[in-house]
Amino acid sequence: MREIFHAELDQFGQQLALMCHTVSEAMEQATRALLAADLALAERVIGGDLAIDKARTAAEDHAQSLLALQSPVATDLRVVFAGLRVAESLERMGDLARHVAQVARLRHPEPVLPDDFRSAFATMGRVAVQMAAGAEQAIRDSDPSLSQSLAEADDQIDALHSSLFTAINSKAWNHGVQVAVDVALLGRFYERYADHAVSVARRMDFVPTGTLWSVREQAASKSGLTEPERGDG
Amino acid sequence: MREIFHAELDQFGQQLALMCHTVSEAMEQATRALLAADLALAERVIGGDLAIDKARTAAEDHAQSLLALQSPVATDLRVVFAGLRVAESLERMGDLARHVAQVARLRHPEPVLPDDFRSAFATMGRVAVQMAAGAEQAIRDSDPSLSQSLAEADDQIDALHSSLFTAINSKAWNHGVQVAVDVALLGRFYERYADHAVSVARRMDFVPTGTLWSVREQAASKSGLTEPERGDG
Repeated sequence: MREIFHAELDQFGQQLALMCHTVSEAMEQATRALLAADLALAERVIGGDLAIDKARTAAEDHAQSLLALQSPVATDLRVVFAGLRVAESLERMGDLARHVAQVARLRHPEPVLPDDFRSAFATMGRVAVQMAAGAEQAIRDSDPSLSQSLAEADDQIDALHSSLFTAINSKAWNHGVQVAVDVALLGRFYERYADHAVSVARRMDFVPTGTLWSVREQAASKSGLTEPERGDG
Repeated sequence: MREIFHAELDQFGQQLALMCHTVSEAMEQATRALLAADLALAERVIGGDLAIDKARTAAEDHAQSLLALQSPVATDLRVVFAGLRVAESLERMGDLARHVAQVARLRHPEPVLPDDFRSAFATMGRVAVQMAAGAEQAIRDSDPSLSQSLAEADDQIDALHSSLFTAINSKAWNHGVQVAVDVALLGRFYERYADHAVSVARRMDFVPTGTLWSVREQAASKSGLTEPERGDG
């Protein structure tokens, strides 16, 4: 029974890793759609978000059936609950990629961004996608250095986000009201996406070594390790 | 054992109802802070959000200990998982009230809103707070008419939100860039808050009658009722 439980827990982890891969691709495509005013690509991201929402529901259903399988011990429960929070962050990352694509669609065929803001958003997109890839790696194999490097990348996004607001609020702003609103909203979407990537990695790094969920969980049981309490990221 | 489980489930429901009450108050105060440029009130909402985040963690911990108490049956699991999603929405409603208060703080001592937008935000605030009160009632005693009336109130918020974007994007806009960004962000905060209130009520209305969680859950078991599948609101 316990072996079945751990095989299922392992699958739950793989489900989350795949979901993370999907939201990383979604933000990569949303950023390309934004920079290239590519309507078809924007539509693909917007349409694809439904699959991400369904993946979260499927992950939750899986977690429910996992817990129904046997009376769960406290360690198992903590791992499953951490996974539920990861699924929540991933769903929101998918929503945020969709929001970026929706702005690109709304302004099509006009480009959303003036030339002097393309570089900032290209960088935010690249860093955000790298962070999602880091979060996926954190789900697949717990490397405690990952959440630290994601936190550093997040600082880079925060600095860019902050520079956008400075530009919008400066007297030199000459791109008008609509562009200001779009830039403010887009900056927020990338900033929130990055925060959730950090949150995913943080929830995964409570066990120091191992590769997949079952392995890590068993290692933790054997060594008597317990994870530290985590804040809300 | 089962009686203890149901007493604990009942407490879990009360925890969520209290949390809902708190996020309703937070939005009521945030709106007052916004309209009156009241810095002390804004600070209170911002500082109070930490307690809402902690209440969510406490609700999750309670759910974990509930599930550790005994091998949960499928119906119990569904109720607990619904409660976890409710706690998630409530935490986000608290965040959104904080975001409103943060805009009020950022612009203080200047008022955020031009006179011609005060009325729209007063209405959005009033309706949003009523919706949160409706969601609280939905948690306390499941009345299937509640989620319907919340959905109608949500339409009102959506229409106001949409009218704000029309105003910002119109050629007649004469309040400048900063006000446009603030109005766009604030409109979004109220719109998201209202969506989450609807989502809370929807998750609660799957059992037609009864008062508290344990009562409803027992009634559902006896009648063999199962809740319909719910989308992501």
